[in-house]
Amino acid sequence: MPYIWLLPAMNKNIVLASTSTLYEGTYLDYLLPTIRELYQGVTEIIFIPYARPGGISHDDYTARATDFFATAGITVRGLHTFDNPATAIRNAAGFFTGGGNTFLLVKQLHTLQLMTALKQAVESGKPYLGTSAGSNIGGVNMQTTNDMPIVYPPSFDTMGLIPFNINPHYQDPIPGTKHMGETRETRIHEFHSQNAIPVVGLREGSWIRVKGNRITLEGALTARIFEQGKTPYELKTGAIIPF
Amino acid sequence: MPYIWLLPAMNKNIVLASTSTLYEGTYLDYLLPTIRELYQGVTEIIFIPYARPGGISHDDYTARATDFFATAGITVRGLHTFDNPATAIRNAAGFFTGGGNTFLLVKQLHTLQLMTALKQAVESGKPYLGTSAGSNIGGVNMQTTNDMPIVYPPSFDTMGLIPFNINPHYQDPIPGTKHMGETRETRIHEFHSQNAIPVVGLREGSWIRVKGNRITLEGALTARIFEQGKTPYELKTGAIIPF
Repeated sequence: MPYIWLLPAMNKNIVLASTSTLYEGTYLDYLLPTIRELYQGVTEIIFIPYARPGGISHDDYTARATDFFATAGITVRGLHTFDNPATAIRNAAGFFTGGGNTFLLVKQLHTLQLMTALKQAVESGKPYLGTSAGSNIGGVNMQTTNDMPIVYPPSFDTMGLIPFNINPHYQDPIPGTKHMGETRETRIHEFHSQNAIPVVGLREGSWIRVKGNRITLEGALTARIFEQGKTPYELKTGAIIPF
Repeated sequence: MPYIWLLPAMNKNIVLASTSTLYEGTYLDYLLPTIRELYQGVTEIIFIPYARPGGISHDDYTARATDFFATAGITVRGLHTFDNPATAIRNAAGFFTGGGNTFLLVKQLHTLQLMTALKQAVESGKPYLGTSAGSNIGGVNMQTTNDMPIVYPPSFDTMGLIPFNINPHYQDPIPGTKHMGETRETRIHEFHSQNAIPVVGLREGSWIRVKGNRITLEGALTARIFEQGKTPYELKTGAIIPF
């Protein structure tokens, strides 16, 4: 296999975070050192606002990202402002996809035929940050999202930047709860009754770091690993993701 | 409009419950008086086990329903055991669809082309009980389910036995939680950023009763009503659903 075909995968430079905001934190503040390192040498990125948390407008959501990234000396342009978003993606130096509703995000990316363009740009080595829904689309498919199916996407397939799925905002069962709805662990078990893709339950404060072919768990917490037919287990921060 | 076309709607006899099981309760026990009244004169029903909670088999899930319905003097047959399930639905005297994963249930019903057959049978007056996912499919579409999209259904449309959607296992925001994932109210608000269908947030212990054209809220609790562009509000038990 010629070296050139290995190069894209070797170049990956990706952060997939469970959440944008920690309890009592402000938007992205806990990720600032990580963001500085991720986007080193980059002065302008494209923000993908399609997940629209709480139904916020693309403009308002982009303004929120713009304000934060100014503190890191990075200019932000919303993908929705380009006449030709596919070309914009090919010309961009880096990307950030914010959280919100994963169904909305995936529908928009597929409908505008941007999912593959974005995947190719990130696999060529351009830095990518995702939070929550923006991290879900880094996985093989969006089928371990926690979100409500408020729209019908033409496909559940996502970028597959990593060879597994993420369950963001992972929550442990709450001891003594009177609520009878399924726990997160039960939901992922149901996913594995139909799918073989491993799932990383990523608690708020954790993120996945991809540098070339090395994929590690970062942040203060352990992550819960789910593999089809196996008992779930905890992975320590700093560890290489074993898939 | 000839009278014959009004007749089916006049006959509806439906219970759509938030959950099958209450905290510290046993399977369906709190619904026993309701079930006796719903299925009056019916000695055998079809159980629809496709939602498979926790990945349980169709046979095991049907056995669970069979055990309970024996206490009400009703025989249960699993829809999965019929060579021709569409014919079985047309010949049946009543139905119960159990909870589990709504995506799995809806995919199966559409793939086997049973959604319309079931809707027609229920609209002809045959008693129908749904719990959780089985209640979701009584709504206009499944887009206010809480479940994980573990499979890709060919459509999100459901039976539309009622002119609104249900959000089962409805949960109020938890005061003082440190979890940053969306509340249920935020999720339904996001649904209304894309859809105009009203949503009834049905707490565990509540159910919707449809008798002819009369649709009421039953059980011990109030329900939370969400309409596009309006402030959510509480509806008292016994009240007519205002859509």
